[in-house]
Amino acid sequence: MTAGWRWREAPINMLERRRPFSPRVSARGRAVIRTSEGFPMLRLPIAPLTKAAFAPFGEVVEADGALVKAINQGFATRCDGLSGVDIGAEGGVVNISLFVAQPRPQPIRVEIMERHPLGTQLFYPLQDRPWLVLVCADPKDASTYRAFAASGRQGVNYAHNCWHHPLLVLDPDSRFFIVDRGGAGHNLDEVWLDAGEQLELAP
Amino acid sequence: MTAGWRWREAPINMLERRRPFSPRVSARGRAVIRTSEGFPMLRLPIAPLTKAAFAPFGEVVEADGALVKAINQGFATRCDGLSGVDIGAEGGVVNISLFVAQPRPQPIRVEIMERHPLGTQLFYPLQDRPWLVLVCADPKDASTYRAFAASGRQGVNYAHNCWHHPLLVLDPDSRFFIVDRGGAGHNLDEVWLDAGEQLELAP
Repeated sequence: MTAGWRWREAPINMLERRRPFSPRVSARGRAVIRTSEGFPMLRLPIAPLTKAAFAPFGEVVEADGALVKAINQGFATRCDGLSGVDIGAEGGVVNISLFVAQPRPQPIRVEIMERHPLGTQLFYPLQDRPWLVLVCADPKDASTYRAFAASGRQGVNYAHNCWHHPLLVLDPDSRFFIVDRGGAGHNLDEVWLDAGEQLELAP
Repeated sequence: MTAGWRWREAPINMLERRRPFSPRVSARGRAVIRTSEGFPMLRLPIAPLTKAAFAPFGEVVEADGALVKAINQGFATRCDGLSGVDIGAEGGVVNISLFVAQPRPQPIRVEIMERHPLGTQLFYPLQDRPWLVLVCADPKDASTYRAFAASGRQGVNYAHNCWHHPLLVLDPDSRFFIVDRGGAGHNLDEVWLDAGEQLELAP
């Protein structure tokens, strides 16, 4: 990421801020309010993952729409430069990881969000199966949350300081390849949400 | 890669150098000599890909044998630091790519080898299917070639200047995630082999 975190410039405030549970939200067809365990609960709609919609949060890593070059004597094609990797702050180095994730109970309750101040974090799926991406500008403001359905051929690279939910998968033992930052320094913020602040996702 | 290219220290000269096609090679059971199109032809054996065997050429990227950490409130596990990425020479940056590769006709004729002087190059498969890795210390010396069968859960990160063959896959439309070097500078050497220098692989 060279552009960095720029949510303030992007049109993500389509829900009225500071009134996340107001009837107006429902009237716009963007979300459904329901009651769960005595709390008002926002059920967040899930949109297809596109570069444009995800731009405020980072990059979509995909071959679709990229320049395709023939290489390897005609036995392969290559799409280059699909994402920036910016991990050098405070002496950071590239960290290559493999994750294995399990589905959460549905409907998925959003209880925690996290961000990485010192580096981008890239996830790419290792099976051709859909998965979910949940991000927000402010964990305490339900109107700023966005949920996306990613295909099994779409990864994401979260920008520095982009609030995101831990991996959300739909199939057991979902594997991912990760490119993020290794090294010393404070590179993780977590926010736990009170019951009244939580949202639900229903894939 | 912090260790860099160190084949001189590793026990890879198990075939006698400078006599790649001699009867002694065959007598050791390490290769089969046969005649093809009038040239003596070395048919290279294929060994399982292991960290130890591949160490002279780079790193094997796999979760097997790595430290597993529970993360994401118990809904995921993570294996960190699976490979070094060393691409900074001469102002290089991390380049994220996706490749799609096609199988070559079998038996696979080895006609070209390549290397990258300025950066490591990491390949990880995006389908859980075996593929092949072919490397050598000297493209003109058949005795220095090593062929490996990688599983669909094993990637490789070629060291700087490690001679390797372009992607060798066994299934059509085999997809890979690549982490290598972008930026200016001379980062590709290719060697085409004369007919008499070529080897064959028979998966």
